Amino acid sequence: MRININADIGESFGRFKVGHDEALMPMIGSANVACGMHAGDPGIMVETIRAAIANGVSIGAHPGFNDIWGFGRRQIRMRPLDLEYFVTYQIGALQALARGQGASVTHVKPHGALNNMAHIDEDYAMAIGRGIKTADPELIYVANVGSEMAKAAERLGLKVAYESYVDRVYDDDGRMRSRERPDAVIHDPQQAANQVLRFIEEKAIISSSGKRIPAQIHTFCVHGDEPTAVPVMQAVRSALHAAGIEVVPLPTLLG
Amino acid sequence: MRININADIGESFGRFKVGHDEALMPMIGSANVACGMHAGDPGIMVETIRAAIANGVSIGAHPGFNDIWGFGRRQIRMRPLDLEYFVTYQIGALQALARGQGASVTHVKPHGALNNMAHIDEDYAMAIGRGIKTADPELIYVANVGSEMAKAAERLGLKVAYESYVDRVYDDDGRMRSRERPDAVIHDPQQAANQVLRFIEEKAIISSSGKRIPAQIHTFCVHGDEPTAVPVMQAVRSALHAAGIEVVPLPTLLG
Amino acid sequence: MRININADIGESFGRFKVGHDEALMPMIGSANVACGMHAGDPGIMVETIRAAIANGVSIGAHPGFNDIWGFGRRQIRMRPLDLEYFVTYQIGALQALARGQGASVTHVKPHGALNNMAHIDEDYAMAIGRGIKTADPELIYVANVGSEMAKAAERLGLKVAYESYVDRVYDDDGRMRSRERPDAVIHDPQQAANQVLRFIEEKAIISSSGKRIPAQIHTFCVHGDEPTAVPVMQAVRSALHAAGIEVVPLPTLLG
Amino acid sequence: MRININADIGESFGRFKVGHDEALMPMIGSANVACGMHAGDPGIMVETIRAAIANGVSIGAHPGFNDIWGFGRRQIRMRPLDLEYFVTYQIGALQALARGQGASVTHVKPHGALNNMAHIDEDYAMAIGRGIKTADPELIYVANVGSEMAKAAERLGLKVAYESYVDRVYDDDGRMRSRERPDAVIHDPQQAANQVLRFIEEKAIISSSGKRIPAQIHTFCVHGDEPTAVPVMQAVRSALHAAGIEVVPLPTLLG
Repeated sequence: MRININADIGESFGRFKVGHDEALMPMIGSANVACGMHAGDPGIMVETIRAAIANGVSIGAHPGFNDIWGFGRRQIRMRPLDLEYFVTYQIGALQALARGQGASVTHVKPHGALNNMAHIDEDYAMAIGRGIKTADPELIYVANVGSEMAKAAERLGLKVAYESYVDRVYDDDGRMRSRERPDAVIHDPQQAANQVLRFIEEKAIISSSGKRIPAQIHTFCVHGDEPTAVPVMQAVRSALHAAGIEVVPLPTLLG
Repeated sequence: MRININADIGESFGRFKVGHDEALMPMIGSANVACGMHAGDPGIMVETIRAAIANGVSIGAHPGFNDIWGFGRRQIRMRPLDLEYFVTYQIGALQALARGQGASVTHVKPHGALNNMAHIDEDYAMAIGRGIKTADPELIYVANVGSEMAKAAERLGLKVAYESYVDRVYDDDGRMRSRERPDAVIHDPQQAANQVLRFIEEKAIISSSGKRIPAQIHTFCVHGDEPTAVPVMQAVRSALHAAGIEVVPLPTLLG
Repeated sequence: MRININADIGESFGRFKVGHDEALMPMIGSANVACGMHAGDPGIMVETIRAAIANGVSIGAHPGFNDIWGFGRRQIRMRPLDLEYFVTYQIGALQALARGQGASVTHVKPHGALNNMAHIDEDYAMAIGRGIKTADPELIYVANVGSEMAKAAERLGLKVAYESYVDRVYDDDGRMRSRERPDAVIHDPQQAANQVLRFIEEKAIISSSGKRIPAQIHTFCVHGDEPTAVPVMQAVRSALHAAGIEVVPLPTLLG
Repeated sequence: MRININADIGESFGRFKVGHDEALMPMIGSANVACGMHAGDPGIMVETIRAAIANGVSIGAHPGFNDIWGFGRRQIRMRPLDLEYFVTYQIGALQALARGQGASVTHVKPHGALNNMAHIDEDYAMAIGRGIKTADPELIYVANVGSEMAKAAERLGLKVAYESYVDRVYDDDGRMRSRERPDAVIHDPQQAANQVLRFIEEKAIISSSGKRIPAQIHTFCVHGDEPTAVPVMQAVRSALHAAGIEVVPLPTLLG
């Protein structure tokens, strides 16, 4: 059995260093690389691409809003067409830098507020999908199970990787508990590992109250910026290893 | 006989509209498209790509410094490696947007202060050249005759288009008179047309004092932001037509 | 009788020149000066301050979102506290530049999407009000009649200038017709002039269907970026002059 | 005896956290607060102002180039007048935010490449001085001993605090060794402490070869971003305490 783990990587910015890229990279299958808007700059992007190659990790674009002060976590309302071109812009920049390292971009996952908005907004989900398709119709659109993004990917004929989270609590409607609530994030490594195994085994999302929402899951995301990201991932990897489940890059899983 | 004319196009920014793009586009052979740093945004880039296609004009990237307040005209000292990645970033963004319109990027010309610096600075000229080569080794590097950029292109095995100017006065050393001098720019359409014809016929740059500096010239640039850009170009086109010289895109000329 | 006219001024940016500042400045009483975020830069701000002084026009800050690509017209959701500090930041920058010219900032009017959001969002309206109060408790908060901003100003003990528009059509609920509708803006100079006179005489807003919504109006805004801004303002000024109504700066009116 | 210690503080940016602000603040006399251009944002600025007040530390503006990707360490050539207004802009923003906390800005120290350039460039040094004077003629201009900035301060009638460094090696010409050399920064706490004491006692800068360059020194800077900043400062404070030298804010020292 095989599964993918993805994480947001390369979210430093010039001299501003954040995240746990070095520790996480060997434990994931796919990296979502910031593209210079909410985080990342051309130099950071190249370093991240190189580290991904060295770790056998597949490379994805992680486009975000043009919002450095808010780290891409502020919702911005723009015209869908502007968003579409903006997504292609960011993917294209990463594609060219990846080519320079002999690699290629194989998936796209929107960042922060853009992801949250596109989760429920069809116009945004479709604009991102079109922006992806323009950059490369073979790109995999990473989308939460049941989201507008997942529907947009299907409608546009894009490959889609259905996503769930390693370290987020789910409510009975199958959606992640809002991060504004204190109990939204799982910080206990063993609890996170158990969640991942159960979701895989039951082919379902299990809410905190125990409700089972059937769901195909290709990839689990870990929040690279949580202080517990590294121990959480270590526990998840051990649990997957013990269960004989291999962590592979997205193109290997969906190819 | 054939020649190329290039101009900086697409240098508007969001709602800030500048330049004479509509009037110039039908008269040029190649457009240098701003890539979102000193000017241009994803939407403007797409509009400009479409207009270029409609006019049979070839598309080039016009990378500039990350300097909106100074319109890319402020010299910025960065590490050559940072510049190299930054150039690839900008070209890659334009390449992806061009693909979305069924077109491709075929040349690169640095903007403003970056161009001025790379003219005389080997490190910058080589960094730009490497950034170009990464994005696509078939790209044409547009460089002033005798500049460090021209040398860098040759060293890196890149195609180069030697450039001169429609509307700039040249000094006896074969270099353009500094734009800080009041007599640096030719505003008289007929004078500009005469200069272009003479440079082509004599296969040389002719200084204002009459000195002849032998030079192969592939492309003449017109400053799109001068108020006289349109009448100047009209006179140049008429003169070229009368002399039986065809204006063609760069790839046609150098293919 | 006296009234104020305000307009957004100084919305150029570096080399990107927009608006009709020179033509409008002699016809208005108060200028809303962009503060470097959605438009304006330190040099443009100083030029605008000087022109205001030369024309006897009072100076206001026109804070906007940090959104150059969208010209401050994209709605951005940030925490109210971040907005509060951000508003003070922009006002403070303008205050210091005004001091350098021997002038002072006397009012504040939010720009674009920030204005639209604060019109109906109490948190935003209060955050802006607090940001104003911090910069200077004597500042006048320019706010549409009936808006959350007007209420916030009252709650915070700030002076408020109730605003209506020279060139906007009003609906029966007393609110401006959405600019997304084609008939939202009045382009006919005489119609605009009539509207201003009627609103003043009747001490009310009159909707397009003729409904009368009583309203005290201190200041009328003209959209400086409409192509008809200058002829509209000329007609309004003539009509005010004929009616014996003087256009004065906001501090004169509310002092 | 009294001396000042200054450090660059508040150089985080949105979610990007850098530096050792909490540890350094109780050990310094004056904080140079980033103003939103090379680092800092309105929220970070307010937090930093509050921490300074709580620690009895005086507040200075730390204006830098509009260069986030380079953290203000890339040299940018702009017109001196543009620089002057830009400096006032940044100081003004900080002044207004400080007023909101019941504090005031009392000194200015340029950041990074701007500091390096103004050290030797009269036009830049004077432009910064004029920008300071506009914001508040009582502001103290912090300038390296012997720099163009020190001369500009004198010419403009500004108070000046002559600065030296806690953790930098000096050459025989009295200038700091270039940070591009590996031995430019002192990482050994005791060596730094000795240097500070010797400079104060001898009223001179002592080069690494032992040469003595007479110099009045008001303030010693510590590089807050060096990993050794905290132990270095602890050693310096202990040494100063043992020698009976008090660390005071700049206005106390120069008032």
